[in-house]
Amino acid sequence: MSMYGPATTFLGIEHVDLDDDAQLADLDVVIIGAPFDGGTSFRPGCRFGPLAIRGSDCQVYDASRPHLSLRVDPLKDLRVADGGDIEMPPGDIELSLARVRAAVARVANLGVLPVILGGDHSIAYPDIAGVADAKGDIAVVHFDAHADTADTHFGQLYGHGTPMRRLIESGACRGDHFFQVGLRGYWPGPETLAWMAQRGMRSYEMTEVRSRGLEAVLDEVCLTSTKDCETVFLSVDIDVVDPAIAPGTGTPEPGGWASWELLSAVRKVCLSVEVSGLDVVEVSPPYDHANVTAHLANRVVLEALSSICHRRKGIASEPRWAPERPLLDER
Amino acid sequence: MSMYGPATTFLGIEHVDLDDDAQLADLDVVIIGAPFDGGTSFRPGCRFGPLAIRGSDCQVYDASRPHLSLRVDPLKDLRVADGGDIEMPPGDIELSLARVRAAVARVANLGVLPVILGGDHSIAYPDIAGVADAKGDIAVVHFDAHADTADTHFGQLYGHGTPMRRLIESGACRGDHFFQVGLRGYWPGPETLAWMAQRGMRSYEMTEVRSRGLEAVLDEVCLTSTKDCETVFLSVDIDVVDPAIAPGTGTPEPGGWASWELLSAVRKVCLSVEVSGLDVVEVSPPYDHANVTAHLANRVVLEALSSICHRRKGIASEPRWAPERPLLDER
Amino acid sequence: MSMYGPATTFLGIEHVDLDDDAQLADLDVVIIGAPFDGGTSFRPGCRFGPLAIRGSDCQVYDASRPHLSLRVDPLKDLRVADGGDIEMPPGDIELSLARVRAAVARVANLGVLPVILGGDHSIAYPDIAGVADAKGDIAVVHFDAHADTADTHFGQLYGHGTPMRRLIESGACRGDHFFQVGLRGYWPGPETLAWMAQRGMRSYEMTEVRSRGLEAVLDEVCLTSTKDCETVFLSVDIDVVDPAIAPGTGTPEPGGWASWELLSAVRKVCLSVEVSGLDVVEVSPPYDHANVTAHLANRVVLEALSSICHRRKGIASEPRWAPERPLLDER
Amino acid sequence: MSMYGPATTFLGIEHVDLDDDAQLADLDVVIIGAPFDGGTSFRPGCRFGPLAIRGSDCQVYDASRPHLSLRVDPLKDLRVADGGDIEMPPGDIELSLARVRAAVARVANLGVLPVILGGDHSIAYPDIAGVADAKGDIAVVHFDAHADTADTHFGQLYGHGTPMRRLIESGACRGDHFFQVGLRGYWPGPETLAWMAQRGMRSYEMTEVRSRGLEAVLDEVCLTSTKDCETVFLSVDIDVVDPAIAPGTGTPEPGGWASWELLSAVRKVCLSVEVSGLDVVEVSPPYDHANVTAHLANRVVLEALSSICHRRKGIASEPRWAPERPLLDER
Amino acid sequence: MSMYGPATTFLGIEHVDLDDDAQLADLDVVIIGAPFDGGTSFRPGCRFGPLAIRGSDCQVYDASRPHLSLRVDPLKDLRVADGGDIEMPPGDIELSLARVRAAVARVANLGVLPVILGGDHSIAYPDIAGVADAKGDIAVVHFDAHADTADTHFGQLYGHGTPMRRLIESGACRGDHFFQVGLRGYWPGPETLAWMAQRGMRSYEMTEVRSRGLEAVLDEVCLTSTKDCETVFLSVDIDVVDPAIAPGTGTPEPGGWASWELLSAVRKVCLSVEVSGLDVVEVSPPYDHANVTAHLANRVVLEALSSICHRRKGIASEPRWAPERPLLDER
Amino acid sequence: MSMYGPATTFLGIEHVDLDDDAQLADLDVVIIGAPFDGGTSFRPGCRFGPLAIRGSDCQVYDASRPHLSLRVDPLKDLRVADGGDIEMPPGDIELSLARVRAAVARVANLGVLPVILGGDHSIAYPDIAGVADAKGDIAVVHFDAHADTADTHFGQLYGHGTPMRRLIESGACRGDHFFQVGLRGYWPGPETLAWMAQRGMRSYEMTEVRSRGLEAVLDEVCLTSTKDCETVFLSVDIDVVDPAIAPGTGTPEPGGWASWELLSAVRKVCLSVEVSGLDVVEVSPPYDHANVTAHLANRVVLEALSSICHRRKGIASEPRWAPERPLLDER
Repeated sequence: MSMYGPATTFLGIEHVDLDDDAQLADLDVVIIGAPFDGGTSFRPGCRFGPLAIRGSDCQVYDASRPHLSLRVDPLKDLRVADGGDIEMPPGDIELSLARVRAAVARVANLGVLPVILGGDHSIAYPDIAGVADAKGDIAVVHFDAHADTADTHFGQLYGHGTPMRRLIESGACRGDHFFQVGLRGYWPGPETLAWMAQRGMRSYEMTEVRSRGLEAVLDEVCLTSTKDCETVFLSVDIDVVDPAIAPGTGTPEPGGWASWELLSAVRKVCLSVEVSGLDVVEVSPPYDHANVTAHLANRVVLEALSSICHRRKGIASEPRWAPERPLLDER
Repeated sequence: MSMYGPATTFLGIEHVDLDDDAQLADLDVVIIGAPFDGGTSFRPGCRFGPLAIRGSDCQVYDASRPHLSLRVDPLKDLRVADGGDIEMPPGDIELSLARVRAAVARVANLGVLPVILGGDHSIAYPDIAGVADAKGDIAVVHFDAHADTADTHFGQLYGHGTPMRRLIESGACRGDHFFQVGLRGYWPGPETLAWMAQRGMRSYEMTEVRSRGLEAVLDEVCLTSTKDCETVFLSVDIDVVDPAIAPGTGTPEPGGWASWELLSAVRKVCLSVEVSGLDVVEVSPPYDHANVTAHLANRVVLEALSSICHRRKGIASEPRWAPERPLLDER
Repeated sequence: MSMYGPATTFLGIEHVDLDDDAQLADLDVVIIGAPFDGGTSFRPGCRFGPLAIRGSDCQVYDASRPHLSLRVDPLKDLRVADGGDIEMPPGDIELSLARVRAAVARVANLGVLPVILGGDHSIAYPDIAGVADAKGDIAVVHFDAHADTADTHFGQLYGHGTPMRRLIESGACRGDHFFQVGLRGYWPGPETLAWMAQRGMRSYEMTEVRSRGLEAVLDEVCLTSTKDCETVFLSVDIDVVDPAIAPGTGTPEPGGWASWELLSAVRKVCLSVEVSGLDVVEVSPPYDHANVTAHLANRVVLEALSSICHRRKGIASEPRWAPERPLLDER
Repeated sequence: MSMYGPATTFLGIEHVDLDDDAQLADLDVVIIGAPFDGGTSFRPGCRFGPLAIRGSDCQVYDASRPHLSLRVDPLKDLRVADGGDIEMPPGDIELSLARVRAAVARVANLGVLPVILGGDHSIAYPDIAGVADAKGDIAVVHFDAHADTADTHFGQLYGHGTPMRRLIESGACRGDHFFQVGLRGYWPGPETLAWMAQRGMRSYEMTEVRSRGLEAVLDEVCLTSTKDCETVFLSVDIDVVDPAIAPGTGTPEPGGWASWELLSAVRKVCLSVEVSGLDVVEVSPPYDHANVTAHLANRVVLEALSSICHRRKGIASEPRWAPERPLLDER
Repeated sequence: MSMYGPATTFLGIEHVDLDDDAQLADLDVVIIGAPFDGGTSFRPGCRFGPLAIRGSDCQVYDASRPHLSLRVDPLKDLRVADGGDIEMPPGDIELSLARVRAAVARVANLGVLPVILGGDHSIAYPDIAGVADAKGDIAVVHFDAHADTADTHFGQLYGHGTPMRRLIESGACRGDHFFQVGLRGYWPGPETLAWMAQRGMRSYEMTEVRSRGLEAVLDEVCLTSTKDCETVFLSVDIDVVDPAIAPGTGTPEPGGWASWELLSAVRKVCLSVEVSGLDVVEVSPPYDHANVTAHLANRVVLEALSSICHRRKGIASEPRWAPERPLLDER
Repeated sequence: MSMYGPATTFLGIEHVDLDDDAQLADLDVVIIGAPFDGGTSFRPGCRFGPLAIRGSDCQVYDASRPHLSLRVDPLKDLRVADGGDIEMPPGDIELSLARVRAAVARVANLGVLPVILGGDHSIAYPDIAGVADAKGDIAVVHFDAHADTADTHFGQLYGHGTPMRRLIESGACRGDHFFQVGLRGYWPGPETLAWMAQRGMRSYEMTEVRSRGLEAVLDEVCLTSTKDCETVFLSVDIDVVDPAIAPGTGTPEPGGWASWELLSAVRKVCLSVEVSGLDVVEVSPPYDHANVTAHLANRVVLEALSSICHRRKGIASEPRWAPERPLLDER
């Protein structure tokens, strides 16, 4: 069930066989491991991301996590199971990615929300394409330090620097349905930026984000991303967070988000728009310390699921709910 | 004197015998080590908290620390000594906690401010109760990611998830005198929250804190906590800070404070209200890196003592003192 | 099933319910986790020993491990299952130890070999006593840097420095049935040594071991331990190994064994005498590096089970088997 | 070329011989390593700072780094080369510092901007003095947790606690041309503060910085520092950043900047004033984790060079440039 | 030149262009980096092996290393250069391995000894085949914990578990020319062992090695490996060493060699037989501590080159040379 | 009392003022810290050696350590005190070394055995010379991976590569009274070796040591070192041990001793010859893991003191004492 290490499900939820439609059909959400780092351009290790994200918590593994603020228990109030890992040979990226696309498309076709735990970001090509295979036109909200729109990577089409290019070039997604937040640093160069502009992508570099405020930027993203598309795929590269806050990653870039900014951004998106797929990628345990990065990624998943659950329940429209409301007030 | 490791006093201050009333009576403040992790529900190691907090500084251990901004030297301007560690066998929590309560009550009865270095948070039951034994009704300001109000813990009454429940249930403190700031994450569940509400506790979850601002929240806490009570016990669980900033702790929860937020919150409380006891808990050196967590806890103690000293001296009411005042201006 | 962390069985073997006699009765061996560090006198962390020992391997978790040299697959050729962890509250050592004794005695009474993964060495009192409860007079072969025969420990009867004293004083085992190998360093002092001598214990300090050779010493141990007793309990404290080779432990003492010496010693004992119980204790993951200590402990369990299996199959008496025989020779 | 470890240039740029005026004369910027930690008062290790800062990046070492926001490639648009390390015997601080002063003065005299990678902050005395030797009156903008104005250090004139005192006392810089931002903690004491005030230094302690805002403070610094002086030396002690964000340093002080605050502050200064010299000091790799501190220091250098390049090109005055401008808008 | 990280040559020797026959033809030895971990079955990271092995030394990088005992300077007395890294995309193992084979064959055809720094052991297939392409029938002496003779690996033909199978099945080497020393643990199973026996491989498991002695085993290997073959390829998987001694590796197996046993074994082989190729593989820096594993691998290269140099110079046959000869005796 | 970090004595023994002859005169042994790393050629950090060696033990700090095998308590049976650290500014090596020589000479003149905790090996020049100042002709037994006989070091006379040269050239010791054991690796070159031979030094390289056996070599050393000299200074550079066993050091060289070999060698020398001084150097905590190196150094001190005590008591000549004697036999 786990490609590397002992069989482990996300916080103790039930295992489900990804090949069994009957089992899947009863679910709201399925967790899928994509333990692959054959697409990394520098530090590997994110093959161990799924294992670490599933098992980095310091509470009892009882398949229950009541969200203190949103007042839902995403593992109880949603029907969630863990489909285990897809076998992805590190030296064969094409085969590995194809398996992801097939699995995600099957899940999405059954109306189940796929949550993919990476692995490196090369899996975004098949996992987003897999959802698009099932759902048609979708928008992509992409939290990342890097645009991931290179033409090639070590001379190869596939790798963690190229997935967004492949998605757009393959027609799986339209460039103007891409909303990237958190870019910074020294990559890519002018040619790639020109290609991105020409495809109509909307990329929020950190100078713009800090200047306008993350909240304002996300309001704009939520509004514009759902103009043309009914649903959104949220792709979270953990390196959008500052390397000091999330050191366990492969291609860090200083100057990123705090952990609370990421959690808050995930909540905002998942409360505001209809999310049809989620991935959390680039968690590399060998470079982590005391599991802080994997634990944060675990919380990204829980925050997303809690918010999705909250949205589905319609709590946000209840008169008593408000972010600033005291925790212990009657609800 | 130290239960684990070489005899070490807080930054080189004098040692004092906790059993000698005559020595104690001359003091303003006494540091007490509570090297206990028998109450932890996950990662242990905070038995080494007292040693690490005392010895994590990178300056000379000369029992002097002039605070740059507040312009007091808490180790010189207050009469401070270190009472060493209380012997707390890890496998006998009841005995261990009883020893803390007795020691703290004796100190507080002599009019000395006890500063307890944990150890896990199970020590909050006896150390707060110990002050209450001496002082009567006190308010508790509690910085923490967790409410610590579980009914039981591995089926036991005592442990680091239950101290606030024991305090309230035992009558040592009233529920409506509890002010918790920093809660977040996925614990506790509805039943415990209902108990907390019923007891009148006031718990500021991080959504409220980020929405209203930490400063506004603390203003409210300082105001309301001193309505009924003359003094406040400040209990600082280092896990109120984000795990990436304070990784050396036992039950981390992403999305917490920055280090400067904690230091600033401690300063605000200690400048604003009369503090009759302080503990700093859950520092677990085996999970720390380069001592950053223990060093921060050390600064929490110094910031608290500096602020208390500043308050006692009445500097804040001097016309020339203001936070925004340049460091080198004449005073 | 696991007290701390995700549910994990030893290398992927089946889980068995320790309370279900019917399930147990079909087994040859049951693995039991004793995740307790409430008895440690210095560095804690071995509560995570069971989890780490079960999951530290870098191969597929397929419940199969064919031993290259002994030519048995202990996880296939023996009926082995994993009974999960016994719940052991860290702050209540008496309750925790009592649960171990009850569980081990039940298992042993059913004719199943218990393999207990510690946890600190305080569990040796109940796990050896539990086997003795079922089997009567047993010998104890004890690999350790420390004699573990203190009278008390932080003033308490129970703790990781006292289990062998409690075993002998309680009458569960006779002192002259104890064979300790690997002692060294600076503990205990003359009084305790006198008590040990008076009880007829046989303790091989490292000076004797290095002077006579480990192999010769073990030959003597195997011979004498089975003079009066039909079976032997093998208790392996990982700190018998040098701290540089097994850093993940709580009370290291330089000058110990190499990893290959421990594996070879375990093989010798388990091939030579009838083993009725095994524990592997004092693995403390927070002090480990790259899992080397937990991995070694995992191999101690496999080496023991492989040797026991080999012994039961009678391979050693086959004409073709010999340690110096080439691996690929026909068998 | 490298004093410690393999020959390495900053991100793959060309090596230049610091003794060859002809080679130097063609450059805009030269990187100089000052691998010295003989002046540290606590944790050493910053002798490896230059090597780590040059080689901590996770991209290809191709001497190109196009800045995403400022739209310049500092390693291409400026003529930058790496002069390697100055040999600085750790036990002879006077000789070591003299070599730095001579080298920096030669470079500055040729009109080349020196960027010195420390090494401990004792090098600020010779590197700032070296620029002053060439340029005359300069202002110093100094980002640091510490004032570095001690009279002596272990009884010695030179060391990382004294450089600013030596600069002012030697007449190389005037006290009222010093602008320190980021001070905090418990050093120095009143006597040294009095000396600083008497010399007219302007020191922004963190209470003032947080109270007024970093941006407002920097606006004031940029304005006042260039009243009397045409150019500014920017000295960046990495410990101005919080120890949790930049753990790899020698004398950490909790409560510092976030990484993005440092990068933004460096950008502001280098865009706003004429910078004639830069040092980045106190990066101590043995205390770092996953290279986060060295990587941040690398980005400080790139941010400074990108901003200097931007300023020289006059982009900031172009109508289309603004921080809040979308990344992919036409320029 | 370096695929990952700054351009670095082995201990400061000259760089040579692997595509330039003229440059190569003048050499005795060329170092080649194979920075590939796309073939690993568990922990990745050995893509950084070449960089770490080249740069892990704590002496000056002056391209000189006089061997204290053998009295040669392998970097001076042999003509050695560093050909840099072969570009090996981690996700395309077939392309990556093909590039290694081509490069090694070219080098070997020019009469230059190739020394390949891995990378994972999948590179042994192309690097040994590359030498065989040039030299014809060669023997392989293979130090490893694992036989590396699996049929497939995650369903793939190529990977670090299969190279020896591919070599033999492809006809590049004959099975009875393989001499494996150091095998142990729980892999492979009976089927693979039967295949190995059938092909006539000679595999020395550690039980045999410890029972007969490493020296005796190596004497036998040196004698028999050169019966049919004029030259030997020496393939050193660092995991032949115990994981506690060489923790920085991907698939550790407890019970291995000490560092001095590996160095001594390398010396023995390289002094005794004609070596036509060498690889040192599976060094994974993310799992290393203080560079001990990379440093050992660096010493394996130096020990091999020193011994080869010593053999070529014929020193061993000089009357005055003997291992037990005092260092400072006249020679 | 401690130059860096909290005041700490060796395992809790009394502090003594090194300037007070009256206090010193009553002692058998005095521990002296030499916290200096200004002489290191690569990794610094050994300034923290004294603190780490004093405080790395995992037992109670009660100034008692009964040696299990030798049956003495060196901290009780000898009069031992800790003189604290000598203040040694890292940037002024000449001043620092002069202070060591003065202090050691005073101690030795009073008939007290000095035990110096380094610090880098540059301190061997003053500490051995200091004993020679008091005692006249002494032999030096020197356990080290390196000869430390360079002419200069970064162009300087003093540093950790030159102390033995300075000792001999200054006339403090004669070259033919030097006995070096453990040398290996790639330093120094022929010129320095020629100088060593010319001075009559006896250096046992590891090839000779492994070939003849450490015990035989040490027998020879003990015999020949005391032919001309009444007493021996034992200088233990921790890097004589293999870097994997003692990673916390500055200039590691693979292929060294095991921990038990060092402890056994120290015991042999101290039981066999009259030791008049001891230093233990080059312990660098920043590169250590779980304190294994510092703990080993701590045991080197205890093993030496225990053996010296044993020798002084004449136990070795008692009929009942023998290494192979069972621990619990009557004595």
